[in-house]
Amino acid sequence: MTQTDPIPEDDLARHSRKMAKKKAARDRMMESRTGEKGLVIVHTGPGKGKSSSGFGMIMRCIAHQMPCAVVQFIKGAWDTGERRLLTTHFAGLCQFHAMGEGFTWETQDKSRDIAAAAAGWDRAKDLIRDPAIRMVLLDEINIAFRYGYLDVAEVLAFLEAEKPPMTHVVLTGRGAPEALVAAADLVTEMTQIRHPFRAGIKAQPGVEY
Amino acid sequence: MTQTDPIPEDDLARHSRKMAKKKAARDRMMESRTGEKGLVIVHTGPGKGKSSSGFGMIMRCIAHQMPCAVVQFIKGAWDTGERRLLTTHFAGLCQFHAMGEGFTWETQDKSRDIAAAAAGWDRAKDLIRDPAIRMVLLDEINIAFRYGYLDVAEVLAFLEAEKPPMTHVVLTGRGAPEALVAAADLVTEMTQIRHPFRAGIKAQPGVEY
Repeated sequence: MTQTDPIPEDDLARHSRKMAKKKAARDRMMESRTGEKGLVIVHTGPGKGKSSSGFGMIMRCIAHQMPCAVVQFIKGAWDTGERRLLTTHFAGLCQFHAMGEGFTWETQDKSRDIAAAAAGWDRAKDLIRDPAIRMVLLDEINIAFRYGYLDVAEVLAFLEAEKPPMTHVVLTGRGAPEALVAAADLVTEMTQIRHPFRAGIKAQPGVEY
Repeated sequence: MTQTDPIPEDDLARHSRKMAKKKAARDRMMESRTGEKGLVIVHTGPGKGKSSSGFGMIMRCIAHQMPCAVVQFIKGAWDTGERRLLTTHFAGLCQFHAMGEGFTWETQDKSRDIAAAAAGWDRAKDLIRDPAIRMVLLDEINIAFRYGYLDVAEVLAFLEAEKPPMTHVVLTGRGAPEALVAAADLVTEMTQIRHPFRAGIKAQPGVEY
């Protein structure tokens, strides 16, 4: 059936009864969800959408006047759209710290990469400790774990001990360590079904940066 | 090895050589990606991040001064953060049309749902046809396909025939139809690994809306 066919009356009544039942079940389920909590949120996997949905949540925080912060562990001086928008429009609500210096094959200097990751994590700790800040996005931090530049056990111990109860911390990047996935409240894996890079299309403004 | 151990010099040199090689390979790969194209982008799957990464891309467009538009097929009068931010700060760059009236179990009226989906799609067609608009986000349109309120073949035929070559169209929602997945340029499936709803946590501002 397409949307242009007329719908028989008894179908409409059946639909209405079915949806009333569904709504009742859903309302009961929603009533059981009463808790509020600062979440540890992980976006991982090879697909697109890990950082962009992190920025989507940062934008939601800004809309709700919730102070928030971004620490970028890989992208450094890149003039991304998210950086431009946050620093030019919302600097009062959202701190933006680009601590990375690019991918490790760009710097080609392991000591510098490690120092950048450590400096990023130091900044992140200060931001997370501040209870006024309601969400901290640690963009591409999983890459720093993957290269061994940051110790996931140390990061998890810090979150457990010092994250204020209502602060959300979002960690993005492919290859999230198992210990992080096990400890997080919300984990999404972005699975790549098709990507235009394979068809020779380059990274484009609006889509990738 | 953690980030605090000193790194032997030969390890550093080896790292540097390896990364120089990796960079050369990567540069060659990037040079082969020269195309630009308005993409059909699909975010589907049961995990979180489908709409929020759509809004992240809309924010990137705004940052690059690319006119864009959002049509919401399900969420209607809900005061979401994304709606508030776009309508109060960026109405000049991004049109926002909430055409839905809520989930089908909320309206409990199939005719009204179908009329809302058809009106949303009519609005979407006008927006997509306008070559000045560089990205159109069709938020939760996959839900309308799933309930049979919109015909995916009709939508795909329209995109094929009338979408300007440089316009990006983003379609979100779980259960994307197979024909849409097959036709799209970029498809990500958000896989749910863990969700706090299961632990009794309710939808929270900044995170879900």
